[in-house]
Order: sequence, then C-alpha cells, then structure tokens
Amino acid sequence: MKTMTKIALAGALTALPTLGFAEDAVPGVDASSDAIFIFNSLLFLIGGFLVFWMAAGFAMLEAGLVRSKNVTMQLIKNISLFSLAAIFYYLIGYNLMYPLGTWSVDGILSGVWGPGVLEAVGVGRDGADDYGYASTGSDFFFQLMFCATTASIVSGTLAERIKLWPFLIFTIALTAVIYPLQASWKWGGGFLDAAGFLDFAGSTVVHSVGGWAALTGAIILGPRIGKYNKDGKTVPIPGSNLTLATLGTFILWLGWFGFNGGSQLAMGTVGDVADVSRIFANTNTAAAGGAIAALILTQIMYKKPDLTMVLNGALAGLVSITAEPLTPTLGAATLIGAVGGVIVVFAVPFLDKLKIDDVVGAIPVHLIAGIWGTIAVVFTNSDASLGTQLYAIAVVGIFTVVVSAVVWFVLKVTMGLRVDEETEINGLDMSELGMEAYPEFSKG
Amino acid sequence: MKTMTKIALAGALTALPTLGFAEDAVPGVDASSDAIFIFNSLLFLIGGFLVFWMAAGFAMLEAGLVRSKNVTMQLIKNISLFSLAAIFYYLIGYNLMYPLGTWSVDGILSGVWGPGVLEAVGVGRDGADDYGYASTGSDFFFQLMFCATTASIVSGTLAERIKLWPFLIFTIALTAVIYPLQASWKWGGGFLDAAGFLDFAGSTVVHSVGGWAALTGAIILGPRIGKYNKDGKTVPIPGSNLTLATLGTFILWLGWFGFNGGSQLAMGTVGDVADVSRIFANTNTAAAGGAIAALILTQIMYKKPDLTMVLNGALAGLVSITAEPLTPTLGAATLIGAVGGVIVVFAVPFLDKLKIDDVVGAIPVHLIAGIWGTIAVVFTNSDASLGTQLYAIAVVGIFTVVVSAVVWFVLKVTMGLRVDEETEINGLDMSELGMEAYPEFSKG
Amino acid sequence: MKTMTKIALAGALTALPTLGFAEDAVPGVDASSDAIFIFNSLLFLIGGFLVFWMAAGFAMLEAGLVRSKNVTMQLIKNISLFSLAAIFYYLIGYNLMYPLGTWSVDGILSGVWGPGVLEAVGVGRDGADDYGYASTGSDFFFQLMFCATTASIVSGTLAERIKLWPFLIFTIALTAVIYPLQASWKWGGGFLDAAGFLDFAGSTVVHSVGGWAALTGAIILGPRIGKYNKDGKTVPIPGSNLTLATLGTFILWLGWFGFNGGSQLAMGTVGDVADVSRIFANTNTAAAGGAIAALILTQIMYKKPDLTMVLNGALAGLVSITAEPLTPTLGAATLIGAVGGVIVVFAVPFLDKLKIDDVVGAIPVHLIAGIWGTIAVVFTNSDASLGTQLYAIAVVGIFTVVVSAVVWFVLKVTMGLRVDEETEINGLDMSELGMEAYPEFSKG
Repeated sequence: MKTMTKIALAGALTALPTLGFAEDAVPGVDASSDAIFIFNSLLFLIGGFLVFWMAAGFAMLEAGLVRSKNVTMQLIKNISLFSLAAIFYYLIGYNLMYPLGTWSVDGILSGVWGPGVLEAVGVGRDGADDYGYASTGSDFFFQLMFCATTASIVSGTLAERIKLWPFLIFTIALTAVIYPLQASWKWGGGFLDAAGFLDFAGSTVVHSVGGWAALTGAIILGPRIGKYNKDGKTVPIPGSNLTLATLGTFILWLGWFGFNGGSQLAMGTVGDVADVSRIFANTNTAAAGGAIAALILTQIMYKKPDLTMVLNGALAGLVSITAEPLTPTLGAATLIGAVGGVIVVFAVPFLDKLKIDDVVGAIPVHLIAGIWGTIAVVFTNSDASLGTQLYAIAVVGIFTVVVSAVVWFVLKVTMGLRVDEETEINGLDMSELGMEAYPEFSKG
Repeated sequence: MKTMTKIALAGALTALPTLGFAEDAVPGVDASSDAIFIFNSLLFLIGGFLVFWMAAGFAMLEAGLVRSKNVTMQLIKNISLFSLAAIFYYLIGYNLMYPLGTWSVDGILSGVWGPGVLEAVGVGRDGADDYGYASTGSDFFFQLMFCATTASIVSGTLAERIKLWPFLIFTIALTAVIYPLQASWKWGGGFLDAAGFLDFAGSTVVHSVGGWAALTGAIILGPRIGKYNKDGKTVPIPGSNLTLATLGTFILWLGWFGFNGGSQLAMGTVGDVADVSRIFANTNTAAAGGAIAALILTQIMYKKPDLTMVLNGALAGLVSITAEPLTPTLGAATLIGAVGGVIVVFAVPFLDKLKIDDVVGAIPVHLIAGIWGTIAVVFTNSDASLGTQLYAIAVVGIFTVVVSAVVWFVLKVTMGLRVDEETEINGLDMSELGMEAYPEFSKG
Repeated sequence: MKTMTKIALAGALTALPTLGFAEDAVPGVDASSDAIFIFNSLLFLIGGFLVFWMAAGFAMLEAGLVRSKNVTMQLIKNISLFSLAAIFYYLIGYNLMYPLGTWSVDGILSGVWGPGVLEAVGVGRDGADDYGYASTGSDFFFQLMFCATTASIVSGTLAERIKLWPFLIFTIALTAVIYPLQASWKWGGGFLDAAGFLDFAGSTVVHSVGGWAALTGAIILGPRIGKYNKDGKTVPIPGSNLTLATLGTFILWLGWFGFNGGSQLAMGTVGDVADVSRIFANTNTAAAGGAIAALILTQIMYKKPDLTMVLNGALAGLVSITAEPLTPTLGAATLIGAVGGVIVVFAVPFLDKLKIDDVVGAIPVHLIAGIWGTIAVVFTNSDASLGTQLYAIAVVGIFTVVVSAVVWFVLKVTMGLRVDEETEINGLDMSELGMEAYPEFSKG
C-alpha cells in the first residue's frame, strides 16, 4: 500500500489525474473526481470482501492441518479472533493507525473515537473528515481486513495446545495496539515511511508481524507433547483433512488478489486500473512459482512430492510478492514467488531442529517469506534501498517480539497459556469445549 | 432495500444526482446517467453473485449440522431448491413482485411473462420496460437471489425427516407465490411500503418469511425421533461436521455484504457508494457482535464456549442488521448484532422446551433475530415507527404462516410429508437416495 | 467471447459507443474512453478472479468424487496443474494465442515474449502494445484463467490411476500449445473466426478441448481396476465425500458468472453492462435447468434422484449455455441447460458401456454438453450457421484428439502413464506420496 495519511491524501487528490471530463461542466463541482471516488471506493469494497474471505481460508487451512481432536477449538478460535479484530480495530486500532481527531470518552460511548471513523462514514467526498478520494467506510472496511489477517496468522502456529481465552486476549492486544501502532509507522505516514521503507501490501507490516507474534508465542508455549521425541527427532503429526487444507489455500490465494490489488488504493484512472491489473497477474504467478518450486524440490529431496509443502509454497509465494507486486515483470514475480516456495521447504525442518513447533507452517510462510519479500523489493523497484528495508524489518520485528513477549508472559503468569497435559492428549475439543468436530467418524 | 416499483423508478431517475458531467455534451442524450447506470448495474451483479454464494453457505452449514446419514439428502435439497427458485421466480415470482404488463399464455410460452422480464433484459437504459437506472437483467439476477435465500432458510429446520418431493413442491409455492406476494407489499411499492414500514434488506421480508415457513413446517412435521425423550428432556444430536458448518457460516457472512450492500440499489453517486461502504462495515461488525456475544454468553452459562452457538450468533447478528444496515453507527451496529447473538443462545433451548425441533437453529437466527432487527430500526432511523414495524411483522407473519400451513397440510394429506420411521432411523440417504455422503468412513 | 485480436481491437475502439461525455473537454485526450477503459479492465479482473475460483471448484469436486485413498494425489494434481498453466500460458501460450511481436531468447530471459505481455502490462490505454480498450494485465489475467480451466477438466477423468508427472507434463503441452493454438483460430482472429464460427465463452474452445483431451487420455490409459467386471458390467465406485463434490459444484457455478459474463469483454457502455447482466441471468438459469432435468430424470428412470447426476446436470447446463449466453431468452436458456442435464444422465452410462472410465463425468459434462451448446447457438443467434458450428466442432476435436494422442503416447512410451497395479489398489496417496488425505478416519 502506498502510504496513506488522511492529511496527505486530502492533498493528493489535487494531484490525481482527471478522467478527462469537462471540469467546469457544473460550476463549483469538481466533476472529474466523482467517478474516481466511486471507482476507488469500489476497489476497497471488492478488495475488502476478498480479504475477508481469507479469514475463512485460514480457518479451513488450520482445521485441515490439526488433528481431528482439536478441530472444533481451531474453528472457534478463528471465527472469534476475526470478530474480536473487527470490534477492537474499530474501537482502538483504526484511530491509532490513522490518528485524526482526539480521543474522548464521549467519543467511545457514542460509537465515535474522535471524528475519524463513524461520523465520516457515509459523508462522502466532501466530508471534512474524509480522505477526499474514497469513502471512509470503504477504507475502514478494507483496512480492518488487514488487521484481522495479521491475527489469523498467529492461530495456526499455536494450535493444539494453547487455551482459548489467553489466545483471544492476545488477539485483542495484537489488533487493538500492536498491529495498528507499527502499521502507522509505514502506512500512517510515520517514521518508517519517512525513511523510505517500501512495503506495498504488507510482507512486513502484516505478514511478518503475524509471524513474529506467532514465533514468540511458540517459543514461550513450547512444542506439543510428542512432537519431538527423546532422541531429539521430529515426529510427524499429519493433518487430519488435507482437502480442507487445500481449500483453505485456494481461498487465501483468491483473497490475495484483493489483498495486493486493493493496496493500490485507487483504480479511478487508467494508470491505476492498469496497475491493479498488473498486480493481479503478478500475485497469481508468484503463488504458482511458489507451488511449483516446492513441488519440484520435495520431489528431488524426498522422492515424493509433498502436498502440504506445495500448499505452503503457494502461500509463501504470495507473501513474497506482497511487498512489491507492481514493479516486477511476470518473470521476476514468478521467481520471487519460487524463492518463497524454496524457503518453506528448508525452513520447516529447520524450525523443527530448533524445536519450535509451528503446527501449520505459518512462521516459514508469513515471517521468513515475508522478510524475503521485503528484501526482494530492491531487485525490481529502484526506489528501494536494502539498508532501509533491513532497518524496517528489524524495527518492526524487535517491536513485535518485545511487546508480544510481554503480553504472552503476562497471560502465562496470570491465566496460564497452555492446557494441561491430559487435555492436550485427549484433545482440546472434548476437554475444553465438550464438542467434537467429527463426532460420528471412528478415529483410526 | 428501498422500495422499487418499475414506474416509481422510471420517475426517480430524474431525481438522481448527476455525476456532474456536461449534460448537453451530446445533444439529446442524458449523458450524466450512463456511468450511473453502469455502476448501479454492476452493484446488482456483484451483490447478486455474492448472494448466490449464500446458497452454497446454507448447503455447507446444513450438511455440517445434520448427521452423516442424512447429508446427501440435505445436499440434494439445497441444490434443487435453489434451482427451482431460479426457475419459478422467473416464471411467476418476479412479475408477481413487480407487476408490470399483463399475464398471458403467449407470454409464458415465449419465455416472457408480460413485458417485464425477458425482452427488457439487455435493452438498456432507454428501453421502455427498463427501470431507467440499472439494467433489468442485473436487477432480476439480484432479486432472484433474495427469493432463493428465503427458500434456503426452510430446508435446515426440517432436515433429517421431511421427504424430498413435498419439500421441493413447498419450495415452488414459496418462491413462486408466497415470497413474491408479500415482498411486493414492501419492495413492490405495496401497502406496507405506503404505511411507512422500513426493511432495508429484508430482516422481515426475507428472513422472517423463511423463518415463519420453517416454523410452520416444523410444527406440522413434528420433531425427529429421539430428539425429545420420554421425560420431556432434549437429547442433543450433534452435527456430523463442524468444519463444514463453519465454512458455511463464513460463506454466508461473505455473501451478506452483497445482500445488504446491494440493497442500496445504487452506487453511481458519491453518496450512494459511501452508503454502500457504510453498510459493508456495519454488516461486518454486527456479525462480529453476534459471534462474540454468543461466545461470552455460552462461556458464562455453560462454562464451555459453544461453536454452533457462535456460528449461529454471527448469523443472527447478520440478520439483525439487515433491516437497517445504513443508519447505525459502527457501535450501534455491533450492539444490534450482539443482541442477535444473545437471542440465539436463549431461543435455541426455548424452542426445545416447546418441542419444536429446528435442526440447524434457523428459527432463532432468521425468524426471531429477524423480528428483533426489524424492531431495532426504530433505534437508529427516525423515519421508522415502532407501531408500523410491529404491524408489518404481524401482517407478514400471519400471511406466511397461514399460506404455508395450507400448503404443508395439503402436501401432508396428498403425498405425506414425513419419511417412515425405519427410513428416518436408518438415514434418508440410503433409504431414499441409495447414496451415502461419506461411504468409506466408519461411523462410530 | 467476441474475437479479440490486438490489432482488430485497437481499431474497434473507435467504434465503441461513447459514454456521452464531452469529447473535447480536454483537448487531445480521448476523454470518453477513460471510464470505458476502467470498466472494461474491472470486468476482466472480477471475471478473472471468479474463474480463478473455478480451480478450487474442480479440486473440491474431484476430491469428493474419488476414493479417499486417492484424494491427496487429486489435490496435488489440481493445485500443480493450475500453477503450471499460469507459468506456461505466460511463457508460451498467451503469445501463441494472440501473436504480436516476435519470439526471442532475449524476450524470454527478460521475462518478455515479444512485446506482447509484460512490457505492456501497466502501460495503460495509450500504450502502443495495449488493446486500446482495457489493460493488458487484466486481459492476460482473464485469458489465463480460461487456459487453466481447460487443464482442470482433464484431471478428473483420469483420476485414481494416472501418474503425477506424466499428467503434469501433458498439462504443460495443453496449456502452452494445444489450448492456445486452437483458441487462436477463434479468439485470436484465426480461420474459424473468419468462417463465422460462434462460441461466446468457449463451449468448444475451452470445454470440448478439455473434454477431448480427457477422452483421449481415458482411452489410452484404460479403466480403473475393478471398474468393469468380467461380465462386462459396470461396478459403481462411489465418491468419498459428496459434500465436497457439492461445494465444488457451487464454486464452479459461481465462477461461471465470471466465465460467461466476463467474455462480453466490455461493460463500459450501457449496452455492454446490460448484456453482461443478461448473461449472468442466463448462465444461472441454464445451470438450474440442467440440475432440475437431471433430478427429474433420475427420479423417473431409477426411482431415486441421484445427487452426482444433479451436480453434473448443473455443470452440463453451464457448459451448454457457454457458447451463447447472450441471445437466448431466460426460457430458452433454461431449456438449453435442461438438455445438458439430460445429456449427462444418458451419457454417463453410455460411456461405461464403451468401457471408457471417466471418474468424475467430465466427458459428458464438458465434451458432450459442450458440443450440444455449440450447436444450440443456431437456435437463438441468427448469425450462426449449423454447418459452420459443426465444422468448427470437428476441426477443434480432430486437432485436439490427434495432438493429445501423440503427447499421451509419447509419455506412455517414455515415462509410463499408469501407476502399477499394487499402487492403484492400495491407493496413490500412500504409494506415490506417502501422505493420506484423511489419516485419522477409519475406512469402512
């Protein structure tokens, strides 16, 4: 995403190319920007519902990759984390990310935090609180989905052993504060943006943040019982339903067109819609590159192609292209994605060597490929500098790890993070929820 | 949805705000409305395919919540009811809802019922039979999906015991006559609209009608064998696949952006697209509110959060905001949705006390939350009057119950509604269809 | 799709009706076509992501219709074939289909094959290499999805016995050469287009080509072990998960709105968006017609409605309307689709009589209904001639069968096409991939 501060954007409007309509056809009305406003808002709405759909993708992917005894828990976590993100990004996060107006108790009680969100929704182009180039409602809807995506990334890594409520409280911290604060450094026009950091749709701002939070949690939480045996060897724990995992991957792939394409933030000019189109094409081919790289690599390394690696390869390809989906050629985008796929194949066993138990592979996909994607910007966008990219990766990483660690530790001390051993062995579904996902099917 | 009669709309065009383009650039052509026409039609198309997708959502939700021995039957009901709705809303319903032109045998044989539907499709803005502000084809496509949604609501409640063909014949009655007739009272510019009844996207017109038809059917059909034991206690019958039920909920949530957003009926002006945006945001947060309310409430009441309640809570939140997704602030929308979630948690056991067996919880979600949503309009829209809302709820309810009851009774007497006891116990799939949904998996 | 050559289209722009905006408002800029360009590109993007979604639909449909021991293999084939299509259609296919510029090693290395694809992406309306009426990126994205769909059709027929790598190599041949070459004869402005052949969205160009390739493969590969017993009777092999098969059908149905609607190639005028709308409505009702025809017919013929026939009936209805979704009335579209549904019910057992083992019914759905749909154009479009339609069906069929047969034979001789008997009996998942799709569930 381009940096988007409310004030900057109000100014940017004057710089937008017009559609070429008669400027003075109706005196006193900036005629040319009406259609642009509608197109831009529509991009946010379409992009937003596609990114919403990614919440379902994460839910299916994770439900497919955990054991059947923990599926209900994974599902309730996914729908609850999205719902909490929706509420707390509205209550706190959005205004923290795009600060405008003043915080007030009155504002909260009346459903308004400062003048930024609610009153402006619906006001339209001429509203004083509006961006001036798209409806605030559409922008809020779109931005919210990015925040929720960040939270979705965490749940998969920590599956099968974390308690429901501490996880959900962490989600609140992440979506109300951690994500919006660091996102404001880039997309809210903060110091990382000023430093020249480039992250088009969030390889770092979204994906690595989710990945760092997941990594911190995984280390504090420890691995699942039985994941690493006494010899230090990794015991594979296969997912219970690979069809749903594949469905989840396809859903995420689809949603990513909205994620990256919508981050153009405009399609009301010929140039913008051409850019959105190029982004769609690049996003698609990066996923393809990641999938095929993982397919070939697992064939070579293990003599058997590995479906879960192919799925994660496609996702890593998507994460890799997210920091810069516009400037690469299709060929470069394919290669950038392919490197993401390679990363997954090597990073999954590497994490296991470190005894970091990441149930669905979210750390390789979102964190490591996210770092790769952020670095890869320098290959195709001459405005990027490697130093600045690394600096931003480090700043965001350190911030997220430190704050996440504090939150995880507080939760560990106060509520406890982990279910007890018996619950974990029997499965969280029966012990914690009293409800199996597949009650009729005999388990082998 | 705003009331939309064909005649009224043709007139309304002149009142539409222009995009500010040079009115007389091309003499004799109303230049300003071309782009508006395209934007409005596009809203119907996008909204329509999103609401179509809800048919898949209902299918997955219901397949996940019935026992595996009845899944094939539930699937065949869902795809068939949608298909019948498509055909009969076209043959009869659409013209009953928006009466224009005259009924004729010739018209039906030629694929046209009056001049209203087919000839006009594709005619465009200047066609005499067109709305004048969006293409008739897009409008028909969008409206059809609402009719089909109404029918989808019924199938879940009556699952696991109703015969296929009587159910499908009821679907024809519902989609050809019951839904369109009462919908015309509001959206066709009928007496409920004249009375000032407000129901933006159909908490009453769609959801309560489906709910009333389901309730009437459930009472006439009676509960499943074994649902209530001899002591009068409720025996829980868990769904066979909660992953699919969760997927279905996410699909419905996604589709609801089209359902409510599309009901703005226009996005060709800055004001309209800002309204559509606000509706997307409110729809989303109402679902979140419903989910979180059910999550917290089941934690408090039962000490164990209940996934099926959370799913139905989200859906009830969506139904609750459907009557007025535009005027509430995000805060108000969250609360309106949350009340929907609370309703579900209390209404599900309440129906069981009445021994009304609603397999998927469609009556709490669509009927009771639909009534709540219709009433809640008065809290945020000063044009609404409580008396009128209650009046319309009652009129639509009585009409739907009476006509549904007649149809159900006629079907009961002539064909029989219910499968025989042995079939019900063995499952409808093998007895009625000879085809299991999961033939390879051992049942526990 | 209308025929679309780059040169023809550049010219066609001048013929596009204007939106009625002031032509000379901004001197030197063709003002009226900016909004048209955006609308057209947006249609390609929306259409494209909907058709992308069909890849998930095929994956779910096929995963649901094979036995659980072959599900992982079917999933890895589906995601891999889509990814390969994305890469090879870009590297070779797109420029073969719309030849412009010259092939060069430099071009490939730099990620550009001639000037056709990559450089132009993003260039916008005025780019010399652009179509002149929509962004090249959006067009490439949309066209790619059609190529990938063709490949998806093949995988279902050949399931449960074909080796992974030969299948994927065939996919490369299909998406790099076979599909693009014959598609250029119609959509690239080749000799079939010149002859007056009409195939709006590809009943022949896409669906029959996939079907012919599948048929050729099925004959060369032979039936699954145990499909036909010694008496010559067909042994039914039920699919393992009909819920997923139904989900897949709904996904395909949804995606088809993009497939047929997007093939209008334009929505920037009132006439075009009205046509797109009519196409959406006709596409939907044809699917409904196909589903209901199969429902009624299986009830009559077998006394038990058959869900898999209903699903394939809906899909056959969609294929049937694909050659001409614009000119039929809704009534005619319903009937055209219904004939597709009837075709499926008779063609499935007919193929079994010929001992052609088509695991998911793709040949009846895509090939036979595709031929029917291509012929049916003559009933509603007076520009079509039966002779020309039959001529094109034959030319495309012969070409696809001959080239596919050569490729299949070469693969058979060099790598072997079929897994060994033990692998087939034990299931491809464990033997070839070492990974079960549902490892925990006991098989009955």
